[in-house]
Amino acid sequence: MNKVLLAIAVLLLSITGQSWAGDAAAGKAKSAQCAACHGVAGISPMGIYPNLAGQKEQYLVKQINNFRSGVRKDPSMQAMVSALTDDDVANLAAYYAGIK
Amino acid sequence: MNKVLLAIAVLLLSITGQSWAGDAAAGKAKSAQCAACHGVAGISPMGIYPNLAGQKEQYLVKQINNFRSGVRKDPSMQAMVSALTDDDVANLAAYYAGIK
Repeated sequence: MNKVLLAIAVLLLSITGQSWAGDAAAGKAKSAQCAACHGVAGISPMGIYPNLAGQKEQYLVKQINNFRSGVRKDPSMQAMVSALTDDDVANLAAYYAGIK
Repeated sequence: MNKVLLAIAVLLLSITGQSWAGDAAAGKAKSAQCAACHGVAGISPMGIYPNLAGQKEQYLVKQINNFRSGVRKDPSMQAMVSALTDDDVANLAAYYAGIK
């Protein structure tokens, strides 16, 4: 029975696109360090930096992790993400993805 | 006198944020090849791929060129952008940046 409930929960989550991975409120607090380049609400004040507001959560996690691992190279971003934990990354992604 | 007019034109363009680099209509036509991953209007149907709608034009040019040069590595993107001209890149960036 528990497996049936779990399957239903997973199905509902996949239909709604809801993620239980990141804490958007914690991400918002952490995002202060990102605001200079990406804007206070994820709309960048400069053309060379991307908007993050409304970006796909999974994509944001992937790219931050690519900067952390050095797969994607950018000296500024590598400095900014070096101290982040996995939870920080999930929270930041949830925050930016949730901005409409 | 021509220099004064040019200076005024540059000033006006910089104030309005208008770019004369890319042709959005040509970019829209070219974007058909991007739609499978990035969506028909730049909103990706999959979490792993970024939304491009409303993204900064300058950032889009920079990233497409990073994929073209191999600075940013992604096998799918490298295959997709390998045949693009500089004009194609400018046009695609103008198209996606202009989607509200």
